[in-house]
Amino acid sequence: MSVKKIKPVPSDLEIAQAAEVQPILEIAESIGIAKDDIILYGPYKGKVKLDAIKHAPAGKKAKYIDVTAITPTPLGEGKSTTTVGLTEGLGYLGKKAACAIRQPSMGPTFGIKGGAAGGGYSQVVPMEDFNLHLTGDLHAITAAHNLTAAAIDARIYHESRWSDSFLEKQGLTRLNIDPDNVSWRRVVDINDRSLRNIIIGMGEKADGVLRETGFDITVASEIMAILALASDLKDMRERIGRMIVAYNKKGEPITAEDIGTAGAMTVLMKDAIMPNLMQTLEGQPAFVHAGPFANIAHGNSSIIADKVASGYVDYLVTESGFGADIGMEKFFNIKCRNSGMIPDAVVLVATVRALKMHGGGPKVTPGRDLDPVYKEENLELVEKGCDNLMAHIKNARRFGIPVVVAINTFPTDTPAEQEIVRKKAVEAGAFDAVIANHWADGGEGAADLAEAVIKACEEPSNFKYLYDLEKSIKDKIEVLAKEMYGADGVEYSAEANRKIKQFTDLGYGDLPICMAKTHLSLSHDPVLKGAPKGFTFPITDIRLSAGAGFLYPLAGDVRTMPGLGTKPAYMSIDIDPDTGKVTGLF
Amino acid sequence: MSVKKIKPVPSDLEIAQAAEVQPILEIAESIGIAKDDIILYGPYKGKVKLDAIKHAPAGKKAKYIDVTAITPTPLGEGKSTTTVGLTEGLGYLGKKAACAIRQPSMGPTFGIKGGAAGGGYSQVVPMEDFNLHLTGDLHAITAAHNLTAAAIDARIYHESRWSDSFLEKQGLTRLNIDPDNVSWRRVVDINDRSLRNIIIGMGEKADGVLRETGFDITVASEIMAILALASDLKDMRERIGRMIVAYNKKGEPITAEDIGTAGAMTVLMKDAIMPNLMQTLEGQPAFVHAGPFANIAHGNSSIIADKVASGYVDYLVTESGFGADIGMEKFFNIKCRNSGMIPDAVVLVATVRALKMHGGGPKVTPGRDLDPVYKEENLELVEKGCDNLMAHIKNARRFGIPVVVAINTFPTDTPAEQEIVRKKAVEAGAFDAVIANHWADGGEGAADLAEAVIKACEEPSNFKYLYDLEKSIKDKIEVLAKEMYGADGVEYSAEANRKIKQFTDLGYGDLPICMAKTHLSLSHDPVLKGAPKGFTFPITDIRLSAGAGFLYPLAGDVRTMPGLGTKPAYMSIDIDPDTGKVTGLF
Repeated sequence: MSVKKIKPVPSDLEIAQAAEVQPILEIAESIGIAKDDIILYGPYKGKVKLDAIKHAPAGKKAKYIDVTAITPTPLGEGKSTTTVGLTEGLGYLGKKAACAIRQPSMGPTFGIKGGAAGGGYSQVVPMEDFNLHLTGDLHAITAAHNLTAAAIDARIYHESRWSDSFLEKQGLTRLNIDPDNVSWRRVVDINDRSLRNIIIGMGEKADGVLRETGFDITVASEIMAILALASDLKDMRERIGRMIVAYNKKGEPITAEDIGTAGAMTVLMKDAIMPNLMQTLEGQPAFVHAGPFANIAHGNSSIIADKVASGYVDYLVTESGFGADIGMEKFFNIKCRNSGMIPDAVVLVATVRALKMHGGGPKVTPGRDLDPVYKEENLELVEKGCDNLMAHIKNARRFGIPVVVAINTFPTDTPAEQEIVRKKAVEAGAFDAVIANHWADGGEGAADLAEAVIKACEEPSNFKYLYDLEKSIKDKIEVLAKEMYGADGVEYSAEANRKIKQFTDLGYGDLPICMAKTHLSLSHDPVLKGAPKGFTFPITDIRLSAGAGFLYPLAGDVRTMPGLGTKPAYMSIDIDPDTGKVTGLF
Repeated sequence: MSVKKIKPVPSDLEIAQAAEVQPILEIAESIGIAKDDIILYGPYKGKVKLDAIKHAPAGKKAKYIDVTAITPTPLGEGKSTTTVGLTEGLGYLGKKAACAIRQPSMGPTFGIKGGAAGGGYSQVVPMEDFNLHLTGDLHAITAAHNLTAAAIDARIYHESRWSDSFLEKQGLTRLNIDPDNVSWRRVVDINDRSLRNIIIGMGEKADGVLRETGFDITVASEIMAILALASDLKDMRERIGRMIVAYNKKGEPITAEDIGTAGAMTVLMKDAIMPNLMQTLEGQPAFVHAGPFANIAHGNSSIIADKVASGYVDYLVTESGFGADIGMEKFFNIKCRNSGMIPDAVVLVATVRALKMHGGGPKVTPGRDLDPVYKEENLELVEKGCDNLMAHIKNARRFGIPVVVAINTFPTDTPAEQEIVRKKAVEAGAFDAVIANHWADGGEGAADLAEAVIKACEEPSNFKYLYDLEKSIKDKIEVLAKEMYGADGVEYSAEANRKIKQFTDLGYGDLPICMAKTHLSLSHDPVLKGAPKGFTFPITDIRLSAGAGFLYPLAGDVRTMPGLGTKPAYMSIDIDPDTGKVTGLF
């Protein structure tokens, strides 16, 4: 694909719509994926059959790179853009590279954040497909999830009407679901605050049993986490069956298998299990697959996509959600542990803007103008803020993997500011720290970063997990709190203690930990910037995703359903009815 | 496609999975649709670009046939099967034929009814795609619909927080939505009785404003009706903008355009507007597009699909929902009026089983064994029941179109029973009445029917609507009640009278009428079988679909959200994890 770069850089949508997108079969062919292993969804996107894993050249295994970030501002520091840009940069250097990224929820697309296809000249295209339905995987999750929700309430309703003997005649055993202990909520892929807490089953007797519940956003569904962690159809079927959806009146777990929807849900997910193939603006393959929440789930794209891609390219760049304390940690301890794939390097994205915030700069609020301090040189704030960068580098080094810091350039950055970041990074043990300008210059702007990453991947890897699964739940939590977040210790609520005992007794004590905490601080408190010390890490509750296969302790409030702002993005989105061109998507 | 017919006839899924499905590009080519006008969604289904309408051979216009039915039992009388079978029958006779049918909701697929791809050797394939996600059109409707629902509640919430001047600074004018008068509900494509009546906005202040609302099934969304009636993207954009979603505190309508989601909804629907191309078991093209409810909406597949198909084949067979008193009437008075397409013949499906019920046979209940009377010869019940058949024939004749009765054969029918039906049909003015056995024998079994239809299409057409739009709302309702349903007169509730005045004052008096009444009787009362007389037709309420462009009076309770039974279909649906083969779908 030939991309003519324009300055000043146009809007993401303008760049994406001006791109000459290649037929996706050509993209597949460029890395040797057979035409027969692609299911086309129009000319520019397709699904890759799982058979492609078997069909890959023997012995091929890509260098495996995770892109993560320092603790971000609420604006984000360009992690997706860097993931795409680095892939383009590797391509620019003549390497066979691909990226594997998450599919975004449509909630933020129509809310405030805009799309998630990268930005500037580091985007995945076609951008409209990426940000809207793509091939329907999220819709499949919504449908599967809500089928089970309807099934649970239908079961409660029918068991309230029928005798044991009538149920038996139907081949059913009474489940005795406790209406006050149904953990399975409903989902919708939109920011709908009014659905967070609802009462269902109002009206007449035939309109169901009254109870309180609510909706989460689709990407918070456990099915999404399963899609991201499953190794194949069989594994997905089994995980779906294992999901705990409610408890009976004795407090015993009831699974999706018990409800009788596990098969139907898997049928609904049978196409979604195949990774989606798209492309970067510069023609590298982009595998887009799964997008689990990074707090109550592990926030990484799918294992299956990585397995496919890894067999066909030399460098596979993937991204983990939020900052390195959350996304990268879960990438290693949960995703890599499930897949058995061993990463070769970590790219840690840092911006001068975020470091200034960590150094004590004023609050950064989406939708408001940035304080001038973020647009003028301020070496002191940057230097102070590097505490956060250095903590993340040290965290990444604990896993035995070389770290390359990518300084994602903004036009307002000064060379002196960037030099501080570079120096501090190397001081903290980074393999290298490189200025990257892929947003404005695409692959050419990420060439230095790509070179550093190539060198880092040649380093010997001493990859290790941060904890053994055999440790107790509390021991595992304490490793994370102390080693990753810098806490002095952990305190547990009575509810958390009760649940830890319950889950241990039920045999779930050896699952990995998927911490649900704020991404706006290394600690549990979004106000604490830099590298906080001297705090106790509070666990208010702990929950179980038995199908996905992790426990998720909650450190404070966790939102699983965002809200829409006063003037959301949808107000400017429209279509030209004559040309069919989308306008206002960003 | 070569289909080897097995006796006894295997299950629908077994037949469908054994079929050698042709690449959809070959199906398109067989009727002259250019490859470039097809967007593939895998090898066996695709979307047809709207440009195909322009690219059709000049002057080509298919004979246009509507398949409808007598008043059915709750089991259905094989209308979809006959639609597919007749298409295969026309193909068997060497004619270039296609069918245009509705996409089913997944609610019934996982509930009790099973799939809707026809049955036996008259099916649309691949059956799993047809009954599950297809190309995501229903998911797009769900997403678009719920975006607007979230937007309405977000607007109510934010207007409750902000001053006029703050809103103005955001470029917003206060809409003053009345929380007790929001007509826009939410939708989900599943049978979920517990969502019929809910309270949202519980929790804290930031969790939205408390109010009562509910969910309908997706196919009941006005967006679905719009998809079925729109002529092109521009028309769809305008109709979506015109939808009334709420009223302000003065009682004035608020549209989707006012809420600011009309553009974004159209963007979500930009792929859904393209008809889906599939195939019958015998290789005729099957256009599958839109599936609006047949009570609160008009229950016909899309105008766009018919316009595309009509330019490429000689015979286009389509289907209208429920019995002829509802689906066919709306097909003529709403769909054809919108499209300007003039039908050439009506096929009225009748079964001996349903006629026995109309003649006084015992109640037919889904999921229960049929009474023996339906399996043994009973000429008296059949003869008495023919009143219903004859009323429908006369109704169809009012539109000036020849009627062919298709007697959809069951193995338990006797020749004497079928002969009564034949005789009565011709007596009532049918052009012909033919025994059809397409379920067991595919196109060959529908050859006689196809021949009769070909002859009927050569008859001169005197097509006319049943009423002029300029008539008053009450006059239009009365025409339907007296001429179609056989009522003596109409009585209106106070609420209906109030609404009729309101809609007339607002300028909506000249819209067509889309009656929401039971399909289980010609009257408003499902218990009244045969051809009821001497009743007054009650209008309890009347509602407006300003975007779709019709008024829908309610004659009694209308369910817009089905429920799941005690042992729903999903319990037997599963997937073979080794082969990926779906099992238990029916």
